[in-house]
This record gives sequence, C-alpha cells and structure tokens, in this order.
Amino acid sequence: MPVTNPQAVIRGERLAVTRALTQVENNSREGYKLLEELFPHTGRAHLIGVTGAPGTGKSTLVNQLAYAYRHSVEGNSPPRIAVVAVDPTSPFSGGALLGDRVRMVDLAGDPGVFVRSMASRGSLGGLAGTTAGLVQVFDAAGFEIIIIETVGAGQAEVDIASLAHTTIVVEAPGLGDDIQTIKAGILEIADILVVNKSDKPGADHTLRALRNMLALAHPLPEDVQHHGTLSTAAPADIEPETGWTPPVLATTATTGEGFQELIAAIEEHRDYLKSAGEWQIREEKRLKNELEVLLRDALRAHWEEKIAPETYQETLGKVIRRQITPWRAVDILLEGARL
Amino acid sequence: MPVTNPQAVIRGERLAVTRALTQVENNSREGYKLLEELFPHTGRAHLIGVTGAPGTGKSTLVNQLAYAYRHSVEGNSPPRIAVVAVDPTSPFSGGALLGDRVRMVDLAGDPGVFVRSMASRGSLGGLAGTTAGLVQVFDAAGFEIIIIETVGAGQAEVDIASLAHTTIVVEAPGLGDDIQTIKAGILEIADILVVNKSDKPGADHTLRALRNMLALAHPLPEDVQHHGTLSTAAPADIEPETGWTPPVLATTATTGEGFQELIAAIEEHRDYLKSAGEWQIREEKRLKNELEVLLRDALRAHWEEKIAPETYQETLGKVIRRQITPWRAVDILLEGARL
Repeated sequence: MPVTNPQAVIRGERLAVTRALTQVENNSREGYKLLEELFPHTGRAHLIGVTGAPGTGKSTLVNQLAYAYRHSVEGNSPPRIAVVAVDPTSPFSGGALLGDRVRMVDLAGDPGVFVRSMASRGSLGGLAGTTAGLVQVFDAAGFEIIIIETVGAGQAEVDIASLAHTTIVVEAPGLGDDIQTIKAGILEIADILVVNKSDKPGADHTLRALRNMLALAHPLPEDVQHHGTLSTAAPADIEPETGWTPPVLATTATTGEGFQELIAAIEEHRDYLKSAGEWQIREEKRLKNELEVLLRDALRAHWEEKIAPETYQETLGKVIRRQITPWRAVDILLEGARL
Repeated sequence: MPVTNPQAVIRGERLAVTRALTQVENNSREGYKLLEELFPHTGRAHLIGVTGAPGTGKSTLVNQLAYAYRHSVEGNSPPRIAVVAVDPTSPFSGGALLGDRVRMVDLAGDPGVFVRSMASRGSLGGLAGTTAGLVQVFDAAGFEIIIIETVGAGQAEVDIASLAHTTIVVEAPGLGDDIQTIKAGILEIADILVVNKSDKPGADHTLRALRNMLALAHPLPEDVQHHGTLSTAAPADIEPETGWTPPVLATTATTGEGFQELIAAIEEHRDYLKSAGEWQIREEKRLKNELEVLLRDALRAHWEEKIAPETYQETLGKVIRRQITPWRAVDILLEGARL
C-alpha cells in the first residue's frame, strides 16, 4: 500500500482517510508512523459511544442520529460525522454487509458522513486499541462528531465506554420490565438512556421502569447511609452530587421521532463535561486506558522474543496434562525469558 | 482468613469450598497455593456456559436447569451442580442480591447445588482469570456440572465461551426478527440455542428466524464457493463438516417446560465432543487461554517493578498533552524498565 500523506488526512481528503484507516486497522508499521503525525491534531472531536443489547435497533438509531445531525442543525453548517461500528464477532460476512446497507440508506452520497465497520475478532485488548487508532484518524481529519457503536453489554462495552466522552445506552420496549435488566450493568456507564422503538407497545412501561432504576442507581449518598437501604425516591427528587442525572429519552429510529431531543441531550452533556472539568478527566482516562492496552501487548511481544518457543510449548503441555498449574507455568515462563 | 485444607475441598465440604472460593476471588497468596493442590484433581466436570442478552430470562433459565438436573434425572443419583454467575458490572449492590433471591427460590437447602455470584468489575482479563480459578475449585470439589452464566454478548462472552465445553445462547421472542440479531455475533459461539419465554407471543417466529439464521451461518462450504452467495437451505438440509449443528430449543423457565430436552441436548453435545476428540481440543484451548491471561498480568506486574513511577507519570503526561503518541510512549516505557 502506498505511503499516506498525513496532510491529506488532516485536510480530510476521503481517499487518504480511507487508506489511513486501513493501515491503522492492519496494525501496519505505516499505520503507526501515520498516527505519530496525526496525533498532535487530535483531541477536538466529541466521541459518542452507542451501546445496547441486540434487538434494540442500535444501528438504525446511529444511522438516524447521523442523519439528524446532518439535516436538522439549523443556522450554521452541520458537523461532519464519522461512525465506527465495532462488531466483535460477525457470524458471517453477509451479516455486516446487510446491516450496513440498511444503515446507510439515508447517508449514501453525503460527503460529510463516513462509516467504518470493524469485523475484527477480539484478541484481548486488541479491539479497544484498534478502535482508538481509527478514532484518532477521524479526529485528526476534522470530523467533529465520532460515533462508536458496539454490540452487547459485556466487557467490550465497558472498554468502549472508557473511550467515549458521552455514552448512550439503547433499550427497547419489553426489555425494561425484567429483573435481568437490573443486572445488565449498563446503567452505570450510561450518560444518556434511550428507549428506541418507542412506537411499540410497552414503551411507556419501559421508560418508567428505567427511570425507576435510575432512581435506585443514583440515590443520595446520605439516604443510603441513614437508612441502610436504597432510596426509592423518584428521579425528579434527587440531584446527585456529580451534577449529571442521565436523561431517559424516547426515540423511533425508523421515523426519526425524538432525535432533536437526543441531539440536544448530547450537546447538554458536552457542555456539562466542559463546564465541570469532566471533559479533561475523561480525556486523561481515555488516553491512559489506551496506553495500558498497548503496553500489555508490547510486553507480551517483547517477552516472546526472549523465550525459546520450545519452552513455551513444553510448559503449556505440562499445564494441559495437569502436571503444573497455570500460575506455576507463568513463573517458569518468566524465568525462561530471564525476566 | 485461616488456611483452607485442600483435602476438605476435594471431599466437597461446603465450608471449605466457600472459603476456597473467597481466597481465589481475592487473588490472595493462599488462593494461589490452594489452586496448586487442587489443580491435579480438576478436569472431570462438564463446563456449561450460558449467555444471552438482558431480558431473555437467563438467570431463571439457569435456576431451572439446575433444578431439572437435580430432580428429573431418573435411575441414578443426580449430578452435583455449581453455578458461577459472572456479572461484570452490577449497577448497585441491591441488584445482584435481588436477582439471587429470585434465582435461588427452588434450590435453597439442596446441598447438591452451589451458587456463586461474582460482582467483579472487569479489569482487562481479570474477570476471565478469576472465573477460571473458581471453576477449578468447583471441579476439584467434585461438582459434575458447572454452569457459568454471563450477561450480554460482548467480548466477555467470547472469553467465557472459550472457558466452557458447551455454550448455550439464550434468546427471547421478539428479538429474533430484527436485523440487529444477525449482527449479535453470538451464533458463532453457540453449541445450543434456546428460545426462552416460549409461551410468549412471537416465539414460533423467533424459533424459525434463528433456524434460518443458522442455515446462513452454517452453509456448506462448497455452496458458498460455487454460487458466491450464502446458502439459504433449511437447517435439515445441511450437514456441516464439523459434525455438530447447534439445535434450536424452546423453553419456559418459569414453568420448567422444555428442560428435559435441554438436558438431553447438553448430554448429546458432551457425547459428541468426547467421540469426536473435540473435548480434549477444547480443554487445551481453555487452559492455553487461561495461561495467556495470567502471563499478561504477570508481565505487567514484573514491568511495574522495574520502572520508576515518575517515568510512568511523566510519559503518561506527555501523551495527555499530545506531545507523544501512546505508541511512542510504550517504547519509552519499555526502555525505561531496561527491557
């Protein structure tokens, strides 16, 4: 692949951006060198994470959100939007393609929108590291809004959340009335909660259930201490010390209903982060997390250079035959590399 | 905490098992020493992963599955069942408690069942490592069936799947008709698919949709090559080369409907794994994965001993001020530790 001109990326030239993304996704040497040049030009974009369970219409919501940003911000020129769709395990390549075709229907031909799907299979930490690199390319290329879409509600989402300034958690009617939802663990990472498919039956119930759960999840600390139980106060009654209560919004991605309110909430959250000094804190957490992921990969690679491959195979063999524990094996592997 | 007698754990004494689990979960030195003693006694249990999106009634299904194993296996003595519920981020402590109370209603007082909830927040890799340790304790203590329940459909689930012999993916009616589900990426890891809440409207549709998706996900390789498109053959028509087509079953966890069939499918999968030599392959993958996770943690800890804390802070600071990229920072941090 030819060398990519960093200036062309910074000017936002589409071909250069496409090439840069591929070089970064391939973890190529060119990709790393390019990021060196681009990095000083990053830090301007608003990174928005969108996550939620399968079946909530998340991709359609992201599509509609990009469209709404492009078409309904009155007065001044609309922001340029990048979408990074992180799809850790696509069951078959046709799936992602099909999804993209549905997603892109309204956005095709708009030069102010760039969608990139990642179908990478997760190595430990690898996905978060690569996503961070792609985000940096878009950031340097002047995309003001970068939406990172992830599937599910597992560890990957928690990692991605630490990558975003604003995390939107998407639910759908019929999920909110189950005790399981309380255990989903995604309320914690949500800056904004959205009940999508709000034209479906049960949407009001789900909205209410989520608002009640938020009241439980964001109780006044004093309340907990005084009574030893969780507060059951309505959301309106509590004003958490952090200064931000996640709003619960209703959208219908297929019609565009509720997206003005969603954009307003996102902008409100950005303003809150900036005025409360939280923006800088999240930036620092984000970059530290990125550094840690890369460091672990580098330490593993460095160790591998110093160990004899036979030693690794032999030690692994002993673990598989249950002669030594994995913990003992680690000691042997560290000694073997003279670390 | 007093020293735990490994023999008491191996005999399955409840108090010793409880103590061992805590020592392992705390990553204490005692926990590591104990695992050394227990490890040669592991490798006998059938590890069953249960995963799926929030709202599918997964915990109730696990509860009912344990109950069914205990009460409806005719003829011989029922197997002892352990449940490890991995709940990476519980939004508030009350949530997990409440969930457990609902889950345990039928199993309370049965000495052949042991449920352990983990409310750990995921450090990178940490959750998978700890879960593996807990599973080893249960395995050494003679639990024949160990069910590992995880939330969501993200990276954590892919990791947990590599920990189990048999992975059950739970869906619920109403989720299967959405294009999003195709992108969930969980079909790949499923050995058995279950549509729970099968008494709800739309269950037949979901069953059909999943069976169609499986037909797409498991096409005959030749089909794809010949036509350049995905096969749309019905599942009955295809016989994948791997020899195992994931069955799609219907259950109603609240009534116990369909659980005899589920147990039969689990046993059939175990027999398939053993006869095809896949059991040993999964064991090896599982232990290698465990070793890798522990190795990365150990390398990070070893590096930390050799680096001056100021160097780390200073380098991180440069990244945060965008003077150097995270990749350049890693080079500095490796040099700083003279690695």
